[in-house]
Amino acid sequence: MLHLYTDSSPNGFKVTIALEELSLPYSLHHVRIDEGDHQQPDFLALNPHGRIPVLTDSDTGVVLFESAAILLYLSERTGKLLPQNARARWEAIKWLQFHASSVGPLLGQRVYFELFANAPIAEAIDRYRNLTQEMFAVLDRLLANRPYLAGEDYSIADIAHFGWMHIAQIVHFDFSQYRHLSEWYARIGARAAVQKGITLPAPATGA
Amino acid sequence: MLHLYTDSSPNGFKVTIALEELSLPYSLHHVRIDEGDHQQPDFLALNPHGRIPVLTDSDTGVVLFESAAILLYLSERTGKLLPQNARARWEAIKWLQFHASSVGPLLGQRVYFELFANAPIAEAIDRYRNLTQEMFAVLDRLLANRPYLAGEDYSIADIAHFGWMHIAQIVHFDFSQYRHLSEWYARIGARAAVQKGITLPAPATGA
Ligand SMILES: N[C@@H](CCC(=O)N[C@@H](CS)C(=O)NCC(=O)O)C(=O)O
Ligand SMILES: N[C@@H](CCC(=O)N[C@@H](CS)C(=O)NCC(=O)O)C(=O)O
Repeated sequence: MLHLYTDSSPNGFKVTIALEELSLPYSLHHVRIDEGDHQQPDFLALNPHGRIPVLTDSDTGVVLFESAAILLYLSERTGKLLPQNARARWEAIKWLQFHASSVGPLLGQRVYFELFANAPIAEAIDRYRNLTQEMFAVLDRLLANRPYLAGEDYSIADIAHFGWMHIAQIVHFDFSQYRHLSEWYARIGARAAVQKGITLPAPATGA
Repeated sequence: MLHLYTDSSPNGFKVTIALEELSLPYSLHHVRIDEGDHQQPDFLALNPHGRIPVLTDSDTGVVLFESAAILLYLSERTGKLLPQNARARWEAIKWLQFHASSVGPLLGQRVYFELFANAPIAEAIDRYRNLTQEMFAVLDRLLANRPYLAGEDYSIADIAHFGWMHIAQIVHFDFSQYRHLSEWYARIGARAAVQKGITLPAPATGA
């Protein structure tokens, strides 16, 4: 049995979307960050870093945190959401990692300095705006020539990026000038599993 | 044939160390970031994001960037540096991703604000100092009970963390109060392949 511990948030959506795409049964546990649930001992026993999402699999004893690790696990467990062909598979893993190491962490910093910092710090705001725009431009050029990030197949690379781009859109980090990226966003967002994933756990952030 | 495009830097060391550990033949291409080589069209054709390291494999046609993707690839290609047992293997992948998504990107921000920003910005310096210390503490508690990050076996999770912790040490981000982490750092640093990896490509950063 799969157990997902999550909140309504960018890294959480990646996993709810993947589970919905795969139609896997799972038990959803709402970890309310604003109430400090992620700092309680029972949660820290699952993830000592105190961050959602966490996935546990009682069939295998695996306990995972880090959304990219969870996506890789779900994909390997089911044989889905990663291409079979080796070259296409590594293309998907590369863009998954681009999200996990570059896009996601830097959008996180941009959210902090644009929305949460005590007072606006121009240098930090500019830094993260420029770095994330540079990445949007990379994705936009890639998507000019392919429907999905890894090529012809929808994969966990798309799911990972969508989780965060959805929040980018909600907080008005405008990416409309990146036409191919915007079209990709609309294409992914039209999927039934994606529409469901971003509502879990309710209530959805800002929606 | 493997080709590695890299500079003397934290994310680059991860790959030179892994290649040395695996005794894989490879051709080393020095991409001099301070001379702008990473912004030249031939390099951008390999990584449109303009970052090192990049690995290409002419036997399979795979072209990878993102150090975590490269480490996973080298491990899968050789069947080494990841445990065979499924639960231990996911433990290693989880801590690899913890590095790739959490430790690495935030150490990168700390380096920027402590060493490169135009003027010191106290809020940003505190933010990244606190966030990285929190992660050092997580690693320290983990390493109190196991010799390597994934458990009994040395893996790509250790290599990924070492690449960055080596730079943390060079730039005097003091982690000596984290005794288990410091002992792990010394243990990994004593390996011949690690000692060689951090000198490639010469001259080594700050060494
Ligand atoms: N790299 C991690 C990031 C996880 C993360 O930052 N989660 C956020 C919610 S999206 C969280 O738990 N924040 C609580 C906190 O920072 O205290 C992943 O991809 O899973
Ligand atoms: N997430 C990437 C980060 C790569 C990265 O930032 N590389 C640095 C050197 S360690 C770089 O190429 N910097 C050049 C620049 O930022 O312009 C990875 O893990 O490979």
